[in-house]
Amino acid sequence: MARILLTIEYDGTLYAGWQRQKNAVSVQQTIEEAIFALTGFGTVIHGAGRTDSGVHALAQTAHFDTVANIPAEKWAFALNTKLPEDIVIRASREAPPDFHARFSAKGKRYRYCMHTGEQPLAIGRNYIWHTCRKPDTALMQKAFADIVGKHDFRAFMAEGSEVKDTVREIYSADMDIGGEIIAIDITGSGFLYNMVRIIAGTALDIGCGIIARDSFKKALESKKREDLGMTAPAKGLTLICVEYD
Amino acid sequence: MARILLTIEYDGTLYAGWQRQKNAVSVQQTIEEAIFALTGFGTVIHGAGRTDSGVHALAQTAHFDTVANIPAEKWAFALNTKLPEDIVIRASREAPPDFHARFSAKGKRYRYCMHTGEQPLAIGRNYIWHTCRKPDTALMQKAFADIVGKHDFRAFMAEGSEVKDTVREIYSADMDIGGEIIAIDITGSGFLYNMVRIIAGTALDIGCGIIARDSFKKALESKKREDLGMTAPAKGLTLICVEYD
Repeated sequence: MARILLTIEYDGTLYAGWQRQKNAVSVQQTIEEAIFALTGFGTVIHGAGRTDSGVHALAQTAHFDTVANIPAEKWAFALNTKLPEDIVIRASREAPPDFHARFSAKGKRYRYCMHTGEQPLAIGRNYIWHTCRKPDTALMQKAFADIVGKHDFRAFMAEGSEVKDTVREIYSADMDIGGEIIAIDITGSGFLYNMVRIIAGTALDIGCGIIARDSFKKALESKKREDLGMTAPAKGLTLICVEYD
Repeated sequence: MARILLTIEYDGTLYAGWQRQKNAVSVQQTIEEAIFALTGFGTVIHGAGRTDSGVHALAQTAHFDTVANIPAEKWAFALNTKLPEDIVIRASREAPPDFHARFSAKGKRYRYCMHTGEQPLAIGRNYIWHTCRKPDTALMQKAFADIVGKHDFRAFMAEGSEVKDTVREIYSADMDIGGEIIAIDITGSGFLYNMVRIIAGTALDIGCGIIARDSFKKALESKKREDLGMTAPAKGLTLICVEYD
């Protein structure tokens, strides 16, 4: 029995997110089926995080255990022959038996991309959210200072989440601006359901003067979702990488 | 009657190229139908160039004449309400009556993108051609020196083309390398059918040592297609812009 760690890139446009669903095709299910097609063994894979429907990943990670006699580093190439072209295993390696893609992770990096041009983009339109609003990006950048650090982010999650421990640490929140494209890069110890999309949408609302400049701070104190701004759409979000020791 | 010039971005993945076809949907037809849906008038639009099936454009141009009473700069927004999301009119303006999108053009810029990683890309896979080959990029860059300038590019076109004047001028041919992605930027007075894809494929073949380093030079002299390398696939090619005085 070997534990295999996969590094996975996917275009989430056509998937109902990472996690297996009853009535829709997920990335997890698609990879599990590829492993079955390759080995004849049913396997459950454990992802580092559950990306939402329409969210992409440049380097998601997941582990699984297998008795199949395939060298660890060959899994990437072998699985890619069974996967659709919107899911690609970028690398595979053996992991220790106590390694867990989710629980061993020390941090994650996400990028949220928005385009503020008059007209939307045709090329790359599935990876970038288009908004006609014209934010003051300096205001957005300033607001991010309020969320860096260890805080109770209870307000920063979609209603209906049942997570109990809502304390997370954000290591950095920066912006990269190229013409009409604004990319928001956020790294942290972990993220609540919809947290990055709520941060991106709130930053935009702050930049447009729709909500107060100290909205992040206010919500960290009040723990109320209504003190924050909109949830930015899924398509602009990409899980960039998962960090381990 | 006004002559309107459109600047058009499109993701060519699902289209049979720019030009109207009998049995397949083209970008030209789709825009002509949008104009009809908007105005009730049938119109022929004249593009600056005919991109192949699967080729993209960041800023193709096209003109048409219309009696519709719509201010020139409003056409972009109005047409976008009738177009699918993979075709976006980026700008519209009035052009003089003697302006012609194709014949008035002074030059065009194309970019060909290839990715030379072990595994293909999932994100952006429709815009970048994946090859497992590992070219010597310095060799490729050197070879481009042979095609810059005014030459008879008869060898540099797909067989079956019926163009008579095959003299073109290439203004520049450069490379931009980022990790495993190689972008080839070519500007010129005009291009023959498949010319940029033949140049990109030949440069790769030269970089991999499959054909001689002086293959471009040899083909310019012999005027024979067989002295050049492969035709790189359509998906990696994007028409970046069309230049006018």
